[in-house]
Amino acid sequence: MDTPEPRHADETLDPQDWQALRQLGHRMLDDMFDYIQTARQRPVWQPIPANVKSGLKKPLPFEPQPLETIYQDFLENILPYQLGNTHPRFWGWVIGTGSASGMLAEMLSAAMNPNAAGGDQISNYVEVQVIDWCKEMLGYHPGASGILVSGASMANLVGLAVARNTKASFDMRKHGLQSVPKQMVLYASTETHSCIKKAVQLMGLGDAALRLIPVDAQYQIDLPALRATLAADQSAGLQPFCVVGNAGTVNTGAIDDLDSLAELCQREGLWFHVDGAFGSLAALSPSLRPRLKGMERADSLALDLHKWMYMPYDIACALVRDPQAHHRTFAEKPDYLARAERGMAAGEVWFSDLGVQLSRSFRSLKAWVLIQEHGIHKYARLIEQNVTQASYLAGLVEKNPHLEILAPAPLNIVCFRYNPGDMDNPTLNELNRELLIHLHESGIAAPSYTTLNGTYAIRVAITNHRSRSEDFDALVIEVVRIGQALLAKYQNQAQRTISISI
Amino acid sequence: MDTPEPRHADETLDPQDWQALRQLGHRMLDDMFDYIQTARQRPVWQPIPANVKSGLKKPLPFEPQPLETIYQDFLENILPYQLGNTHPRFWGWVIGTGSASGMLAEMLSAAMNPNAAGGDQISNYVEVQVIDWCKEMLGYHPGASGILVSGASMANLVGLAVARNTKASFDMRKHGLQSVPKQMVLYASTETHSCIKKAVQLMGLGDAALRLIPVDAQYQIDLPALRATLAADQSAGLQPFCVVGNAGTVNTGAIDDLDSLAELCQREGLWFHVDGAFGSLAALSPSLRPRLKGMERADSLALDLHKWMYMPYDIACALVRDPQAHHRTFAEKPDYLARAERGMAAGEVWFSDLGVQLSRSFRSLKAWVLIQEHGIHKYARLIEQNVTQASYLAGLVEKNPHLEILAPAPLNIVCFRYNPGDMDNPTLNELNRELLIHLHESGIAAPSYTTLNGTYAIRVAITNHRSRSEDFDALVIEVVRIGQALLAKYQNQAQRTISISI
Repeated sequence: MDTPEPRHADETLDPQDWQALRQLGHRMLDDMFDYIQTARQRPVWQPIPANVKSGLKKPLPFEPQPLETIYQDFLENILPYQLGNTHPRFWGWVIGTGSASGMLAEMLSAAMNPNAAGGDQISNYVEVQVIDWCKEMLGYHPGASGILVSGASMANLVGLAVARNTKASFDMRKHGLQSVPKQMVLYASTETHSCIKKAVQLMGLGDAALRLIPVDAQYQIDLPALRATLAADQSAGLQPFCVVGNAGTVNTGAIDDLDSLAELCQREGLWFHVDGAFGSLAALSPSLRPRLKGMERADSLALDLHKWMYMPYDIACALVRDPQAHHRTFAEKPDYLARAERGMAAGEVWFSDLGVQLSRSFRSLKAWVLIQEHGIHKYARLIEQNVTQASYLAGLVEKNPHLEILAPAPLNIVCFRYNPGDMDNPTLNELNRELLIHLHESGIAAPSYTTLNGTYAIRVAITNHRSRSEDFDALVIEVVRIGQALLAKYQNQAQRTISISI
Repeated sequence: MDTPEPRHADETLDPQDWQALRQLGHRMLDDMFDYIQTARQRPVWQPIPANVKSGLKKPLPFEPQPLETIYQDFLENILPYQLGNTHPRFWGWVIGTGSASGMLAEMLSAAMNPNAAGGDQISNYVEVQVIDWCKEMLGYHPGASGILVSGASMANLVGLAVARNTKASFDMRKHGLQSVPKQMVLYASTETHSCIKKAVQLMGLGDAALRLIPVDAQYQIDLPALRATLAADQSAGLQPFCVVGNAGTVNTGAIDDLDSLAELCQREGLWFHVDGAFGSLAALSPSLRPRLKGMERADSLALDLHKWMYMPYDIACALVRDPQAHHRTFAEKPDYLARAERGMAAGEVWFSDLGVQLSRSFRSLKAWVLIQEHGIHKYARLIEQNVTQASYLAGLVEKNPHLEILAPAPLNIVCFRYNPGDMDNPTLNELNRELLIHLHESGIAAPSYTTLNGTYAIRVAITNHRSRSEDFDALVIEVVRIGQALLAKYQNQAQRTISISI
């Protein structure tokens, strides 16, 4: 056969000197083990110096640089300025810790580097197994469909998209919302996470379609108010199609009365979606599971594995009870993705049929490794431990005359503030805002904050497998110390405010 | 201070024996180096034995297992059955190769394990730098906004969501599409990737809103047909809002006339979105860049870094020329995500304001490492090398009397088939379908396939930094060998068909 000559020597990104790269790799791995092992010895968080920020800005590099040089830059200017969530006293937002074996699993995944979207390859089978485990550990339907995604924002989007398409009275994929016969509306409490609102916006439903129902003193959805709004919407000729229940609200960890919501949805023919980003994982604990009664009746369920199972970012799961409904919402089969009976393009499950992504990292591997390594009983104990720590912290707060608890702490989230008494709410808000910044800058502990009924709250969300009881002692001591140091300033200010108002 | 006693000894996921974990980690790293270094010595792909599939199915593990045991299971039952895209002769779909230093960067990222959504942390600054580099290397607006996402499906979704919300004549986030004054419609060629269709469906626009315009013989969008459809829609009282241009179609690598599309969009007040998943990267090469003229005029642009920059899965980028429009589409500020002036909750950029995700892995780190390590000139040479290899393969096909080229190969994709002559199209389709499965099962090479005007095509998409010219020689030899072996079967079959039709 007459073949033309290759035109030039072929280049590659593989190293010329594998041995040198190996040595550097092993040094990196040792450094990363040191980094993880010594998390407790560092400040939780520290500000990024201005020169580090400005030093990061570089023109597009055209020429190669030694990986060692880049790594040195990483060690000096990147590694020290992470968010802090690997630290035992990080309790900001709801963010998990990660682990050393999680890091190793990510390394294995990046070495294999498949696109885990479809084809007859092992990643699909690993993902199916992990999803089966998720169903089993939450007590969800064994026949449900599922997909691993990047986080609960994506998992909630998947669930709500299936809800919208399945409950529509017409072919949603074909016709969209531009000519709906009846306005489609859905329901969730005011404490529902903003990702639900973002999903509703992205899906073209509009905020107006999302009926936010008030909560009671326990921050749970007010069922009579929900029923009243639903009835009014039905009377007004709208099409209610979905209720979103919260298994652990972001502000306070409240769990809606999921069983009553399931009952209502069943009676009214509505889709029942549960946002269980972190709270659904409480189902791993036999003692906590009863609080989630009704979650197993959800038509779709979103949960994170990087939060309360402490896996490396990012990994979450969307579960959908009706596999056909799930598939009908996302499957597209263009010619270049046609399936074969055998060969590389075969395969029973194509995850691109079950979600937005066609490019997907092999994120199931870390879950497959870590669930087996630790076992569910250990995860259950750690989840219980975090709940116990929240109660412990709430107890410390309640016993401390300088501190005030601001909401019930039913799960793993504690909202409180420094309150020495004799101060109006705006001043207390300002004092606590300043206090939290000082706490962050101290490097001792890193809660985040929220606002509850106009009151600024220091918010401690515990999804951390490194926290110990004494870490909460340290938090309380430091909050009181900083509060007292700031007190003079704010008392003077309050005094001035009073003088002015007089 | 009166503090209650902790109730039990605290548990953690940290290992009891760090030294043992370190040793295992180093063994894993060595094995993974071996695995990557020896990619060429393995079959590209191999079927997963039934017993491996069934062996993977295990009940939920409640008790811990030694990580060594799990790792052994991984080595035996997972590692050998990957998709094959790390292999020099993998050319399926459009999937990149990954690299050893990419794996190391992923390890560093998992060790730090931030949630890269917001807060004052280094990941934000690294991501800003990577996005700035993306803009610079593509010749895009320096002032544009951007976000790293998992793949072009997500990046296209981001771009189209900003297009929809920005071009709507009303507040899309508030009111949605349920009461549009005019039907919103957008335009793309029939060769456009299915992720555009999926995004249109997810956003509630409906397939009916997506006007698919025919292509010419070069597989480029037919401009007169586009203008005619647009004019008809305008006359019919619809609201055209966007044109999607292709910088590299998935079937054949065709590049639409982007400059003419930009011109049209500017004149008609339409949003110009470019899907540049892989093809946009051709801009790195001075010799290829002219083919993308007009891409720099796009209002939004989607590109992958795991395809033609061979980075580990997953990493892509969405760029939006108008930063305010980008921010307006996705930013939500609930109380628990409120920003602070200083401390951990400060930070100039919150990427959760620019996309769907609030949970985000530190994927910018690998791009930051790899772009510096290799430099853009090297990437440009590798991209040129892949284009040259496509021409080389097309040349081999054209010179071979048993093979037939099926479409122009302007970039890095070659569509061809085995065609010995004297066979009807359905039989050729069946023969080539069978041929490709045999090729996959041989483990020698792994193209995928598509259908072009009813003709089944073996499709070779080269985004592989390990491929050498001789790999394409091997492909051609093997295709002809398998084709000839199958020929007798299909000739007999064709004979039978003729007999029956007689």
